[in-house]
Amino acid sequence: MNLPQHAPMDWPVVDDCLMLGGILLTTLARRVGRTPFYAYDRARIDVRIDLLRRYFPGAVKLHYAIKANPMPALVCHMAGRVDGLDVASGGELTTALDAGMTPQNVSFAGPGKSAAELARAVAAGILVNVESSREIGILERISHDAGAPARVAIRVNPTFELKSSGMKMGGGPKPFGVDAELVPELLQNIRSRGLAFEGFHIFSGSQNLQATAICEAQVKAVELALSLAQSAPAPVRVLNIGGGLGIPYFPGDEPLDLAAIGENLYVLSERLASELPQAALVVELGRYLVGEAGIYVCRVIERKTSRGEVFLVTDGGLHHHLAASGNFGQVIRKNYPALIGNRVAGGRRELASVVGPLCTPLDVLVERMELAQAQEGDLVVVLQSGAYGLTASPGAFLSHPPALETLV
Amino acid sequence: MNLPQHAPMDWPVVDDCLMLGGILLTTLARRVGRTPFYAYDRARIDVRIDLLRRYFPGAVKLHYAIKANPMPALVCHMAGRVDGLDVASGGELTTALDAGMTPQNVSFAGPGKSAAELARAVAAGILVNVESSREIGILERISHDAGAPARVAIRVNPTFELKSSGMKMGGGPKPFGVDAELVPELLQNIRSRGLAFEGFHIFSGSQNLQATAICEAQVKAVELALSLAQSAPAPVRVLNIGGGLGIPYFPGDEPLDLAAIGENLYVLSERLASELPQAALVVELGRYLVGEAGIYVCRVIERKTSRGEVFLVTDGGLHHHLAASGNFGQVIRKNYPALIGNRVAGGRRELASVVGPLCTPLDVLVERMELAQAQEGDLVVVLQSGAYGLTASPGAFLSHPPALETLV
Repeated sequence: MNLPQHAPMDWPVVDDCLMLGGILLTTLARRVGRTPFYAYDRARIDVRIDLLRRYFPGAVKLHYAIKANPMPALVCHMAGRVDGLDVASGGELTTALDAGMTPQNVSFAGPGKSAAELARAVAAGILVNVESSREIGILERISHDAGAPARVAIRVNPTFELKSSGMKMGGGPKPFGVDAELVPELLQNIRSRGLAFEGFHIFSGSQNLQATAICEAQVKAVELALSLAQSAPAPVRVLNIGGGLGIPYFPGDEPLDLAAIGENLYVLSERLASELPQAALVVELGRYLVGEAGIYVCRVIERKTSRGEVFLVTDGGLHHHLAASGNFGQVIRKNYPALIGNRVAGGRRELASVVGPLCTPLDVLVERMELAQAQEGDLVVVLQSGAYGLTASPGAFLSHPPALETLV
Repeated sequence: MNLPQHAPMDWPVVDDCLMLGGILLTTLARRVGRTPFYAYDRARIDVRIDLLRRYFPGAVKLHYAIKANPMPALVCHMAGRVDGLDVASGGELTTALDAGMTPQNVSFAGPGKSAAELARAVAAGILVNVESSREIGILERISHDAGAPARVAIRVNPTFELKSSGMKMGGGPKPFGVDAELVPELLQNIRSRGLAFEGFHIFSGSQNLQATAICEAQVKAVELALSLAQSAPAPVRVLNIGGGLGIPYFPGDEPLDLAAIGENLYVLSERLASELPQAALVVELGRYLVGEAGIYVCRVIERKTSRGEVFLVTDGGLHHHLAASGNFGQVIRKNYPALIGNRVAGGRRELASVVGPLCTPLDVLVERMELAQAQEGDLVVVLQSGAYGLTASPGAFLSHPPALETLV
């Protein structure tokens, strides 16, 4: 029987031990001091950024969406390497500015922004991706009081959606952005309201592994922007077409064809250069930049056999890594790629499940996967864990110790 | 078309405003100071405990499983009203003792207990529900060092499972407890290892709304205990048969027939009195004690219409209430019962969705439900939110402010 396999992950292994940032995992675990922990590899992030720079036209601006992983040290690392940071809350705004990114290159999107968050954004001088006419009204008052116009782009809810997408964020009725058909009217009076118009944010979905679907959505986003630009009160200077670039998580998932997306961006970039010459094309990525650079590490507390099945009971679980347990947006639970970090190939191999210490059957990290035969004290590693890991998990559930984080 | 409805919830309403603990929700929101918050109603918890005491035989001990809601003030309230507290981690052990519960009546279950947690449990003098022979070995060393025997009950993984259960925790291969067929051997040498045997913990599932299934599992648990007791090194003093009592969350769910469970417990209680006269029958409840006594409250930040659909964008969302978003153990997303707390009946009614401020399509609290027509500033209330709410949610996701909690 040929079951679907996980895509190959090219982590270095020395003496059958996983290495991260040039450090053996066993050494890293001692350096961190205790398990469980997340470890993120600077060099792998840099390799990913280099890859994107190589495939994408030089004119494309690369932004990092902090929501994927807001660890301060990681955001600082990122701030020196990407062209901008995207934030989704007042808290993330603080993280972005603390990381040293120039406010000119920080943008803020998200439904239901509070008046306090909008005031902070204007005071910081960042770009607000406006989601509604309500936000326009609040920004008008803030700009009036501040004596300086708020910098705004219109987040558009397009009429199309991103096909084959893990999460659809555009098309049909949505809480995100302004419906495309209402944008021209909104643009009409934006200048009279004391706001500085800078462009559009058109984002239709995320975690997509189909390059053709992403390219199609990018083309439609640019065409929609060109059409809306005719109603704009000022030249378009920013066109953020979002991201949507997925990474392979589950058996059968294939890595994205980045070359195809790069080629598409060359065409779009040239078209923009001729039709909207002042517009910078922004691609906003979160998961694709950091997801494959991070691992989650927990320790086998107990090796248990129940009625013929092996369970590795660890000190980590869904309270640290909800997505790996299958409880974050997945309909059917599938295994993340995982291995025994200190015996990657191992001697004997076996089918085993990895569970956490929580008193709930939901607390499963790995369900019946072939792994090296593990002993108590061994390190279980869940790969592809650099994005939507720690902060997307219910850390306080059952009052166990939190996971640590390290950037190596 | 007759769609399934939510079971009736008997919250008091005055001037079309929900009341909790004798306080209007609008007043309570001002008292808390900001939204979002969870509010738990002491009186409703007490009513629930009274109801259980009325239906259950006096000999049945009622325990509260802290994992359902570990808010310290709530656990303190509970400590004065139930017969015992059950903890699932070292953190919860601290909460239980801080609440003033006598250690004699605290028990600790959970796979993968660390040696440090087991040492704390022995030092505190609480009962350890042992999950494996590994724990026996560690407790033997601790007892030897302490010069006093650890108090232990054996958590048994039965051969049966709880039918129609939201979550199955027994039957088949499981990480929880000791497989029933291995228990007699484990019991043989427990006294020689310096441990004080007190009984059994047999728990097969949770969140069940079928009284017949619960009664059947309880009968089987007692029968299994009677059988295992023949191998016990000392009289059985505690028989914890878990809980599993569910509450109605979704349209079509009917409240549990508590009378039927009470009748069953009378029969079991009499049988135990004659066959294991020293054994206290313990029923361990979490969700059933607190789930219906709590609400989650968030404020409408923006009322938005997109392509004909109404979205109430609030300051609350899945980062505070993951279960209501459908991302915690549910396969198909269904709506929790919800209402507009400050206009319960309202004037006009409409179909609306309630979403949060997170930039993800997962951040939905209510999907297309008939609600009173709400305005910005109104309070959205999600009912049935007293258990597995705040601590079962990814509070740090997107760096928004945490939800507050109040016990009224």
